[in-house]
Amino acid sequence: MRYCYFNGKILPFEETKIGINDLGLLRAYAAFDYLRTYNGKPFRWHDHYSRFKNSALELNLPFGYSEHELQQIIEQLLVKSEKVDACIRLILTGGYSEDSMTIAEPNFIIAIEDLPMSNPEMYENGVKLITCEYLRDVPPAKSTGYLNAIKLQPMKLEHNAFDILYTWRGEVLEITRNNFFIFKNNVLITPVDNILHGITRKVVLELAKSNFTIEERRVDVAELQDADEAFLCGTTKKAIPVVEIDAYKIADGKVGENTKIIMALFDEYVQNY
Amino acid sequence: MRYCYFNGKILPFEETKIGINDLGLLRAYAAFDYLRTYNGKPFRWHDHYSRFKNSALELNLPFGYSEHELQQIIEQLLVKSEKVDACIRLILTGGYSEDSMTIAEPNFIIAIEDLPMSNPEMYENGVKLITCEYLRDVPPAKSTGYLNAIKLQPMKLEHNAFDILYTWRGEVLEITRNNFFIFKNNVLITPVDNILHGITRKVVLELAKSNFTIEERRVDVAELQDADEAFLCGTTKKAIPVVEIDAYKIADGKVGENTKIIMALFDEYVQNY
Repeated sequence: MRYCYFNGKILPFEETKIGINDLGLLRAYAAFDYLRTYNGKPFRWHDHYSRFKNSALELNLPFGYSEHELQQIIEQLLVKSEKVDACIRLILTGGYSEDSMTIAEPNFIIAIEDLPMSNPEMYENGVKLITCEYLRDVPPAKSTGYLNAIKLQPMKLEHNAFDILYTWRGEVLEITRNNFFIFKNNVLITPVDNILHGITRKVVLELAKSNFTIEERRVDVAELQDADEAFLCGTTKKAIPVVEIDAYKIADGKVGENTKIIMALFDEYVQNY
Repeated sequence: MRYCYFNGKILPFEETKIGINDLGLLRAYAAFDYLRTYNGKPFRWHDHYSRFKNSALELNLPFGYSEHELQQIIEQLLVKSEKVDACIRLILTGGYSEDSMTIAEPNFIIAIEDLPMSNPEMYENGVKLITCEYLRDVPPAKSTGYLNAIKLQPMKLEHNAFDILYTWRGEVLEITRNNFFIFKNNVLITPVDNILHGITRKVVLELAKSNFTIEERRVDVAELQDADEAFLCGTTKKAIPVVEIDAYKIADGKVGENTKIIMALFDEYVQNY
């Protein structure tokens, strides 16, 4: 059984309900974060807590929990759910609003979720992305705003793609729920503006800096076709090679050697976390 | 007591709850519509029903209710809530998703709400708007996506403005929850692309066509300063004169004569609805 935390109580996830006048439901007004554990320990908890707190601040939502307090709640949820490793979803909504527009006392949810099944083939052979012109609302805040990501799922399936790479006015941004990197002449390059700053992105940059020169900068769409390698990264995906974007292959369509180094560094890091 | 309809049942609004794994809450994935009654009758029900059905279609959400069936449910809710006139909120969510991304069987809510208090001063003296660069996600669909509108509320209060007028790449679009019009040389001009096509907007255009030449077209931001008159319209607001935008006044800052004609036509229309 999966458990969740809801406004001070620990409850079975499937039985936990929220009033329909919550601003998260009525107006898509909610801060969000998502993390996983490795070896039973919330991965980079300090980073996730800080980002969630910042998203709440960006959305003018009061949030009083300390980093330590929340970590203890997460640990209780893992024990009660009888899980060593799991994913953890944090949602802080605009609360039960009187007029459906004014922020009220936030409702706060922490839900424990099963780790998604991993597909080794993606890591061995790489995946395909398709591009789509889109800029998320309030890019610096992680919110529940994934309308566009879900709406585009049929297009993704139609093109037999793994996910969608957002571009905006000629600039490469991010994937629906992940960050994106390319290698060019052994330099690791990744967008820096108008994206959500993923914690996995941060870890990749930390791990890569002793092996590669790093450029965090604007990436033009035109650079995609010239890239030597590409990969994506995210909480549940670690680093996955990208070998095809829209109608063209990245380099020769094979997983790049530098990408393999990143994948190995990441695996080593989480094994010992 | 206010009542709502939730997946086939009529329940007291305040006691109605939805599971926290609903895609409307987790991913802001929900179609939305909003209407009011005049003289106990849902105003332009056919138009609202058609738009809601189209929003559901845009979001790939199955929706099987007929126009007549829904109207009967709304009438039952009004009787049970002991209201002659009220506002009606329709929400169709992505349902209880197994993986937090895949659309499931939608949850459907109809909620009865009190009519907002009307402020006669706004109609007599007009209101101020401030502009902000923003394009809604999936513009042709009315969704619950109002993150930006709520986030901007403090800025609105700070500027002592009534609401926010969205502009995009030099083009005037719409207000957070309303449509926008100007008069120039007695021609009624309103944006037509990248906006939500309001039902009140439609009624205004129907009523205005015997008195004015109408242009539904791209409106440049530069045209705002040269406008002779401006107004906004929406479900609960009817037509409200706009006399100030950002730092400048529209014409002499007084309510325009043509706008008064529109307001009178609208009042007459709803009185006899």
